[in-house]
Amino acid sequence: MPTYQKPPTVNDDARAQDIYREAARIISEKGFDATSMGDIAETVDLTKGGLYYYIKGKKALLFAIMNFALDLLEERVMAPARAIETPDNRLATLLGGYVRLVLQEPAAMGILVSEDEKLDPSYRPRIMERKRAYTDYLHAVIGEVVAARGHSDIDPALAAFGILGLVHGVVHWCQDGDGLSEDEVVAQVTRIALHGLVSPLP
Amino acid sequence: MPTYQKPPTVNDDARAQDIYREAARIISEKGFDATSMGDIAETVDLTKGGLYYYIKGKKALLFAIMNFALDLLEERVMAPARAIETPDNRLATLLGGYVRLVLQEPAAMGILVSEDEKLDPSYRPRIMERKRAYTDYLHAVIGEVVAARGHSDIDPALAAFGILGLVHGVVHWCQDGDGLSEDEVVAQVTRIALHGLVSPLP
Repeated sequence: MPTYQKPPTVNDDARAQDIYREAARIISEKGFDATSMGDIAETVDLTKGGLYYYIKGKKALLFAIMNFALDLLEERVMAPARAIETPDNRLATLLGGYVRLVLQEPAAMGILVSEDEKLDPSYRPRIMERKRAYTDYLHAVIGEVVAARGHSDIDPALAAFGILGLVHGVVHWCQDGDGLSEDEVVAQVTRIALHGLVSPLP
Repeated sequence: MPTYQKPPTVNDDARAQDIYREAARIISEKGFDATSMGDIAETVDLTKGGLYYYIKGKKALLFAIMNFALDLLEERVMAPARAIETPDNRLATLLGGYVRLVLQEPAAMGILVSEDEKLDPSYRPRIMERKRAYTDYLHAVIGEVVAARGHSDIDPALAAFGILGLVHGVVHWCQDGDGLSEDEVVAQVTRIALHGLVSPLP
């Protein structure tokens, strides 16, 4: 895993994580530029001074939210996938875990995916490196799967971005309210990604 | 097909289409709010008065760009798919045509997908109705394919949004430069959507 520097004055305790989660929710609703530190302090029931104890400003906060999302991605998605022996099951775990994380933490994961432009240039390379570690791993696992199956007609890098798009397309649709459980959505995404719409299941 | 009203002072000739295409390109680069009618007039080599002959303002322009993209979607994607007899091939044509259109008209198609929020409320229902006609058709074709194959484990509405996400994920990746031809990208997307990463081809 790439090393990365924590933003100043941030710690990892549960209170800090609550703050990142709530801040992500407000930023998702109002937009990054329209959200003030005062808005965030109010939502997490802190004075502005209290909030600055945890985080020194909006730029550091965005960096912290993205690292929070990347920590979750490592713990809940990549680590479990790495523990699995066979490529097909490793890919299913990697996709299912990603769907579940995006459903559980939509705001922080949405910011991780879409707010690169707002990152301070001093923080951007570290975030991009961590994001690339994830897409490179997905690419590598897809490469193993298609190699093991002899599917030399599939480009693993292209497939990795296509499959990420598929996950986000499904999650976007689910946010409009569809009545499916988290487990059902996970099952549908892995089903479609692994077997497509036409091929019979094994 | 749903009926829709053309925006005032717009006509369908080739010059108007050039204007929509160029305007879409500038709006994609600078953002809708940051683009002025003067910027657009300059790019298409018209005086501001000349531009107003074609289009009465930015709100009407956004509506016209989206209708331009929807007209292309009808002509190049939906009409050819409707002409195809077997569901599997109809779906392949629908997906391949969509990929090709997004690669050929990235700015207008990008605006169609992402700028709903900027639409004037008086225009929004007509655009949403035309967009829904496309997603409903994709949903119906996927429904036919999975029914014909007996894949009752796939939710066609969820699959429709997943597959659209897959297409946009791939196109986004291709924009970073990948060296694949348009035909190769079309082939990869239809391959993955129809057969997945694991299932053998028939």
